[in-house]
Amino acid sequence: MTSFPERHHMDGNAPSPDHPHVVILGGGFGGLAVARGLADTHARITLVDRRNHHLFQPLLYQVATAGLSAPSIAAPLRQILRRQSNITVLMDEALDVDLAQRQVRLAGGWLGYDALVVATGATHAYFGHDEWERYAPGLKTLDDAFTIRRRVLLAFERAEREDDPARRQAWLNFVVVGGGATGVELAGTLAEIARHTLPREFRRADPRQANVLLVEAGPRLLPAFAPELSDKARRQLEKLGVEVRLGTAVTAIDAHGVMLGDAPHPAHTVLWAAGVAASPLGRSLGAPVDRAGRVLVEPDLSLPGHPDVFVIGDLASIAQVDGRPVPGVAPAAKQMGRYVADVLKARWRGNAGIRPFRYRDDGSLATIGRMAAVAQFGRLKLSGLLAWWVWLMAHIAFLIGFRNRLVVMLDWAWSYWTYQRHARIVTGTDETGEADATLPREG
Amino acid sequence: MTSFPERHHMDGNAPSPDHPHVVILGGGFGGLAVARGLADTHARITLVDRRNHHLFQPLLYQVATAGLSAPSIAAPLRQILRRQSNITVLMDEALDVDLAQRQVRLAGGWLGYDALVVATGATHAYFGHDEWERYAPGLKTLDDAFTIRRRVLLAFERAEREDDPARRQAWLNFVVVGGGATGVELAGTLAEIARHTLPREFRRADPRQANVLLVEAGPRLLPAFAPELSDKARRQLEKLGVEVRLGTAVTAIDAHGVMLGDAPHPAHTVLWAAGVAASPLGRSLGAPVDRAGRVLVEPDLSLPGHPDVFVIGDLASIAQVDGRPVPGVAPAAKQMGRYVADVLKARWRGNAGIRPFRYRDDGSLATIGRMAAVAQFGRLKLSGLLAWWVWLMAHIAFLIGFRNRLVVMLDWAWSYWTYQRHARIVTGTDETGEADATLPREG
Repeated sequence: MTSFPERHHMDGNAPSPDHPHVVILGGGFGGLAVARGLADTHARITLVDRRNHHLFQPLLYQVATAGLSAPSIAAPLRQILRRQSNITVLMDEALDVDLAQRQVRLAGGWLGYDALVVATGATHAYFGHDEWERYAPGLKTLDDAFTIRRRVLLAFERAEREDDPARRQAWLNFVVVGGGATGVELAGTLAEIARHTLPREFRRADPRQANVLLVEAGPRLLPAFAPELSDKARRQLEKLGVEVRLGTAVTAIDAHGVMLGDAPHPAHTVLWAAGVAASPLGRSLGAPVDRAGRVLVEPDLSLPGHPDVFVIGDLASIAQVDGRPVPGVAPAAKQMGRYVADVLKARWRGNAGIRPFRYRDDGSLATIGRMAAVAQFGRLKLSGLLAWWVWLMAHIAFLIGFRNRLVVMLDWAWSYWTYQRHARIVTGTDETGEADATLPREG
Repeated sequence: MTSFPERHHMDGNAPSPDHPHVVILGGGFGGLAVARGLADTHARITLVDRRNHHLFQPLLYQVATAGLSAPSIAAPLRQILRRQSNITVLMDEALDVDLAQRQVRLAGGWLGYDALVVATGATHAYFGHDEWERYAPGLKTLDDAFTIRRRVLLAFERAEREDDPARRQAWLNFVVVGGGATGVELAGTLAEIARHTLPREFRRADPRQANVLLVEAGPRLLPAFAPELSDKARRQLEKLGVEVRLGTAVTAIDAHGVMLGDAPHPAHTVLWAAGVAASPLGRSLGAPVDRAGRVLVEPDLSLPGHPDVFVIGDLASIAQVDGRPVPGVAPAAKQMGRYVADVLKARWRGNAGIRPFRYRDDGSLATIGRMAAVAQFGRLKLSGLLAWWVWLMAHIAFLIGFRNRLVVMLDWAWSYWTYQRHARIVTGTDETGEADATLPREG
């Protein structure tokens, strides 16, 4: 690894104490909030992301279920930040941090910093069963979404070609593991596709025979919500045609299906929405981490012993005033990012005594399907159609970029009236050997 | 390979002389036209395609250059044909045809037919230099378009990270090989992206330093058009910033660039728009083929000696009345498809003497870039802004599905006013080892 002098990244400017260099790792909600919060400062900022785009992750399940096209929920980081002249965007991967030398090791070289913000988020985790990933893809990136879309669409194609009733049903059986927001959204949408979008298009297999099974090991769905909303979510899902099984652990997953405790359940399409682990960069910082690998940060979100290094978003572990952890959601990441920008600006003004980070809970929303959702704002709890409208408006409002909002609204209106899903294209190939070109005949 | 009785594909119906089974291989413009032409007949139809979608290929270059998202130009075949109850769609790959037994061998098994229409089109060809494909991807499928989009976007990212001026320039050098419609469209759009879309977003590399070189071995661009329009196209391209080199053969391509005759031209991004070869299924039919592998068909588009087998679209070689070949364009494929449907219907009515296929030239259009195009309708020749408007209206009119038209219009209007291109996302990985996750440092 060659040395990669910092000044080469910075428009040729030499490092200067008048222009502290802030390095932000990760262009998600947290990293972008830091960048924007430092827009009108004398700081020089380098934002590093291994992808070229910011992803509106709350709508990723809609790409996975063919309702939205990828560019509707992803915008190039350069484009988002192009008017902010104190920022350089680098598409690169952060490998680890040399805290003593204040340098980040990127795949492309070294990058020095005066202040560092680590916001590299989380990925899905299989609780020690990494071999399940092959059979049960998770949903964190656009490529994950394409994999899920490909498998779901190909499952119906395979069912259409299968003569044997039991084998055909295995292609029509879908299992979603995990009853959090992503699992609920995926299961509800799959049921809608099978019941409303596809039936008229197949001649031999009947998509209405599809079984969508949502498995949750805990006692209720959506544990972040009030228990009565968990119950409402379950009933709304069942009305859409989803089979919900609570208190049930998945003990094995392979190409043929899942084991629910000791009972085999045949299914060729299994989706993973159960476990989340923090980015491995967290552990490399040398500070204590929690069980999911999140860094236990100070009240000002800095790394213990390193006041110039901050950890925010899904990678940070910090408690709220009431002792509950700050949830790993987009609004929390944004609030942390804005807070860190404020801390840095206060320090540069010579004011070191800024008050600790406080999470403000703006409420929670989860969509379940067509006109079905749950919402919770403090004591106010909504479900059904009203919650669905709130969800719709909130997600359109938060989408980045006017054009995206317009296109997403158009796509949703079109899907709503026609029951169609416009992104139903199979592209690419799959590590299991499934390709768009050839569907190998089984065994 | 197990036997795969035909009746299993056909809603459980047994074969019946009252319901001739028409098998169509390929869901492009030609295959779809046959299917639609037989909509209200007693025929049972099976349409086989290895992809699940019909692709509006004339706009594929816009997906490759991040102007349109893939679902805007691709619609599921099942969805297009869902109201036509005499059609079964199979996602499968045709491997060869047993003409004696009247059966098609699919990857998934055998499929019998009473009449067969082979419409599997063409792919790009490297004139015996298949090793070039790795360095110079062609453009025929959505996956090809994603590969080109990824390489073009990553080239600018690499330039931004490169310190050495010569090496940076190699990342900013783009070569398009082939001066037909696709090459002209790709080169013009690349120049527009470099000059108008990206400049404000990079801090170290200057996208305006990009060099887009269009290389054509023949004496003029767009050989299907009148010579004066070829000349106008060249001047319009040069105005957009493209360097056009005519009468120049590419003699080698590798990771470092191309050889133009004996002169090396460094470039990390090379796109192939030069050669087309017919689908290999053509040669497997045993009939004479031309140099590009197209089947020399009878005047009624049937295979010599096999009146129940038809070959249409880019896979067919047939002369017009004036001796010139019918061009490999979408309107020709559509006309052939409608013609074959008419032949079959006439035969079923007992009328065998239908007149030979006649190609009707509705004119040619090629777009060059922003407000620049050429058009030719018989003796009427247009170029510049007027031709561009005709191109725009024609392509929106021919796009399949109301929703797609609306979204494409919206995307184009947005791009036009903002100079932005909304699909600038890098996803997937590349066979050369380039990934969205990590850009390995060179050398």
